[in-house]
Amino acid sequence: MRKKPMVQETAESLAGRQREISVSEFFLKNRHLLGFDNPRKALMTTVKEAVDNALDACEEAGILPQISVEIQQTADTRFRVSITDNGPGIVRAQIPKIFAKLLYGSKFHRLRMSRGQQGIGISAAGMYGQLTTGTSTRILSRTKGSKTAHAIDVQIDTRKNMPTILKDEESDWHPVFYQAAIDGKPVEPVTAKSGTCVTIEMEAAYVRGRLSVDEYLKQCAVVNPHLQLHYRIVLTRAAARDEEEGRKGSKAKAAAAEVAEEPAPGNDVPWTTFLRATNQVPDQPQEIKPHPHGVELGMLMQMLKNSPARTVRAALSQDFSRVSEKTALEICERAKLNPKANPTRIAHQESEALFKAIAETKLMRPPMDCLSPIGEAAIEAGLRKEIVADFYTAVTRSPTVYRGNPFLVEAGLAYAKPGDNADLTAEEPIRLMRFANRVPLLYMAGACSMNKAAASVNWKAYGLSQPRGSLPLGPMVLMVHIASVWVPFTSESKEAVAHYPEIIKELAFCLQECGRRLSVFLHKRQRLAEADRKRQYMELYIPHLALGLKDILDLKDRDEQALVKQLHTLLERTHLET
Amino acid sequence: MRKKPMVQETAESLAGRQREISVSEFFLKNRHLLGFDNPRKALMTTVKEAVDNALDACEEAGILPQISVEIQQTADTRFRVSITDNGPGIVRAQIPKIFAKLLYGSKFHRLRMSRGQQGIGISAAGMYGQLTTGTSTRILSRTKGSKTAHAIDVQIDTRKNMPTILKDEESDWHPVFYQAAIDGKPVEPVTAKSGTCVTIEMEAAYVRGRLSVDEYLKQCAVVNPHLQLHYRIVLTRAAARDEEEGRKGSKAKAAAAEVAEEPAPGNDVPWTTFLRATNQVPDQPQEIKPHPHGVELGMLMQMLKNSPARTVRAALSQDFSRVSEKTALEICERAKLNPKANPTRIAHQESEALFKAIAETKLMRPPMDCLSPIGEAAIEAGLRKEIVADFYTAVTRSPTVYRGNPFLVEAGLAYAKPGDNADLTAEEPIRLMRFANRVPLLYMAGACSMNKAAASVNWKAYGLSQPRGSLPLGPMVLMVHIASVWVPFTSESKEAVAHYPEIIKELAFCLQECGRRLSVFLHKRQRLAEADRKRQYMELYIPHLALGLKDILDLKDRDEQALVKQLHTLLERTHLET
Repeated sequence: MRKKPMVQETAESLAGRQREISVSEFFLKNRHLLGFDNPRKALMTTVKEAVDNALDACEEAGILPQISVEIQQTADTRFRVSITDNGPGIVRAQIPKIFAKLLYGSKFHRLRMSRGQQGIGISAAGMYGQLTTGTSTRILSRTKGSKTAHAIDVQIDTRKNMPTILKDEESDWHPVFYQAAIDGKPVEPVTAKSGTCVTIEMEAAYVRGRLSVDEYLKQCAVVNPHLQLHYRIVLTRAAARDEEEGRKGSKAKAAAAEVAEEPAPGNDVPWTTFLRATNQVPDQPQEIKPHPHGVELGMLMQMLKNSPARTVRAALSQDFSRVSEKTALEICERAKLNPKANPTRIAHQESEALFKAIAETKLMRPPMDCLSPIGEAAIEAGLRKEIVADFYTAVTRSPTVYRGNPFLVEAGLAYAKPGDNADLTAEEPIRLMRFANRVPLLYMAGACSMNKAAASVNWKAYGLSQPRGSLPLGPMVLMVHIASVWVPFTSESKEAVAHYPEIIKELAFCLQECGRRLSVFLHKRQRLAEADRKRQYMELYIPHLALGLKDILDLKDRDEQALVKQLHTLLERTHLET
Repeated sequence: MRKKPMVQETAESLAGRQREISVSEFFLKNRHLLGFDNPRKALMTTVKEAVDNALDACEEAGILPQISVEIQQTADTRFRVSITDNGPGIVRAQIPKIFAKLLYGSKFHRLRMSRGQQGIGISAAGMYGQLTTGTSTRILSRTKGSKTAHAIDVQIDTRKNMPTILKDEESDWHPVFYQAAIDGKPVEPVTAKSGTCVTIEMEAAYVRGRLSVDEYLKQCAVVNPHLQLHYRIVLTRAAARDEEEGRKGSKAKAAAAEVAEEPAPGNDVPWTTFLRATNQVPDQPQEIKPHPHGVELGMLMQMLKNSPARTVRAALSQDFSRVSEKTALEICERAKLNPKANPTRIAHQESEALFKAIAETKLMRPPMDCLSPIGEAAIEAGLRKEIVADFYTAVTRSPTVYRGNPFLVEAGLAYAKPGDNADLTAEEPIRLMRFANRVPLLYMAGACSMNKAAASVNWKAYGLSQPRGSLPLGPMVLMVHIASVWVPFTSESKEAVAHYPEIIKELAFCLQECGRRLSVFLHKRQRLAEADRKRQYMELYIPHLALGLKDILDLKDRDEQALVKQLHTLLERTHLET
């Protein structure tokens, strides 16, 4: 084969080929960054993005969430995923952009804890469906009080990162939730006044296990006890048969899915329902303003430039948290800056002085009501509900700050008696369940700071064995949660938390406290076992002892019996004191 | 503190807060995704992005690259970084967008091996500088034959992801390269006819070691033997003193940087130069078209819709690689589609049929001249130049394909005799050097498929000890390179290669071949050592043997001497035969 002649570029020829890359094109090519690297993960990511959005919307509107997840296999490697919620619904004009434009949303520009934060997820799922099957994303949405619902089909124009609307109709759709039968008795479906249903068809694969949709939904129900979740997966007949055989073979328990004989819609595959454990919507976290100590010089300059305030002093006290009028004045004085200066006309030098002055000024920590922890009681209850174990504990740390962003960590631990729980063995690494802003994280554990923190703790000190630099071994489940106004994920797929030293430190403290409590329990159990062993040993000898004493002291039979009793009482007392 | 009343959102109130997020805003908040998570890494990432661009530009223009990297400390935690190249220069109109707009460039939309691929890096570095110091990116550029150079200062308007030009002047600047003295004799600086210089000031930290700018540049010179690289770092007086003390204390060798007494520009800190080892610019890889087997249904539909061809048959043969007119016809027939149909008007069903037909058609693998491997000879030479060792080998695999993208892997290995190389010990894990498209990867080794592949190989079979699931131990450097038209990185900072099974498999094969060669060497060395030991033992006894024989056979002294000689010869021969 003859080699083509080499083209030598010049500045001009290169210039002709420079062009803008739309963010959709970028992520289409880099879809593994968004959690669409393989068919199995694609299914989980899609469900996750839709459920996260549904939960956020319900909570913001103060609605007790009811969510239904239906997965229908349409061909060997194709699935149609529908997620319905009873949230506030979405106004018509916003629907196309929310579902078919990357980087669009309401959560990015505010500092408040929420599951979604990027405005990428659900549009990316739709884009993946479109890429692999050529189909559109279908949205049904009804807002409260409106007479009809909207039914809209959209695709992404990836070159422009803009929605293309393929269908836009009025519809009399209502969100309906089918519940699993209780004690064999069917439960009437519930219809909500408002809500949204999104349907995406995509190339995917359904595999049970630790990285499956089932697992994601189960964990989701644990950390969201106010959520009522309905779920079913309808496989094609062929796949169902394979599943059934595989299940019998491996004796794996069916987590939630059921098997259909007919893959047609309207079939009667039953639903699985995770009932809610509380009727209380969690406290809505408050939105906060940026804390001055977390703002870089360039950001400060931009904020001043865009400030609606008339004076620097006002800008400082209004645009930032924890800066009172008085503190603002103090900062201006320290920076030798006229507090009445127009913030939009501050020179570079003056901003630098201001930046330095802020760094030198003591300020209160950011307000913490922007965070909504799960809480120690709820974590422990969740673990008790899901995991058979011997010892449970949970720790919620006080909030603190990384890069100006408030965050807190909490952890829970369930330790089983070896042999009590078939899923947990003493020889294997403990099971680590990770959560960020109440969202379960299943993938990329190795890259997560939670894993790193758990491996960095010296668990040997708490009675567990631990290979160097790894997770400890033992029949234990460890649950870790981080709540923040901005969780720093290692990638757009939001599966692992980045290694900020402040976060790792907090995690380690939290896990150490759990470890100490475990250690107390294990010690006590060990001591009790030891004492029990001794006691049984002693009990064996009490009659002989009594007999001996009787001989020596020349006692009566009655006295001997009394002596045995006394000795038993003595033993009992000693035992209790240990 | 009284709790603020809870705001309950409605569909309408939520709609009011939905808005577009610019890609700059996104990455500003998520800057750890781009490699700007800490000050030390920020410095390395900036140098890396600028050097990568410079090398790409030089190679595309067929220019032997000459690059100078100057880092000047301006305050305790502030550095000014300047990178100058002798590339083709950049036309004025393109400069602002190339340096102050994320997702802009010439490399994203083509399938060709290059260092840059996203159009993010250098603008992100500028954005980071702007964020942390409020300064602008300064670009000087001169194209060949133009009378003047352009001097442009830009910042990013992060809300719009668009450049703001702060200064735009003509200048008589020429790219100048200062070289290190040779044998103490100063070398005259060289002036190039065209080139670009970019200067960014940022919050950063300079720390030597495995993750430093020094290491990056050193490795860069190794895999780019056609590059002449000049480097110096000018520290402030205080930092220089600390450095000096630290260096004396730890006895660390000064890699490249020198210490200034005066931090002012124009100082006389000498340059370090990595001289080029060859005057041959590497073969320019060819641009290719997408391979039909790597294209998903949705992408196929979009390509047909946008095709300039008039018929489906022509579209297939012109827009894809490895599809001849004849094959195109065959595909159309298999899909029961009129080959003369207009490709822009294909229905969904027809596209699906076409997609299936393509999958069922046998096609040649994608052309491989889009890849430019380093080559076994160059890898081995690079290792010999940099690492004192006993055994060197290198393997370049044939190209293959993941997701339709051609790629190839190559690896080299340097094994030192224990004790010969102070940097390499038998007890520690081997050192793994990773490269992608000739760019050294320093960070995030744990997340990289190269690490995974190296740990998955059974090195015990090749004579090394290896903890389970980890890198082997031993005095060894392993160099791994992947070349592809699209390297799938795990994040935008391009530090680790994603876990595509095809890639891991190729890497493992490549490393196994290196391992086998190492094993042959180690076996031979062991056998030789064994034989040597035996020989020395025998030699000790030859005189006694001869004396004994002399007594028994009643020989003369002369005969005895001849006998000793004969015995020695015999031993020699036996030794050589082993």
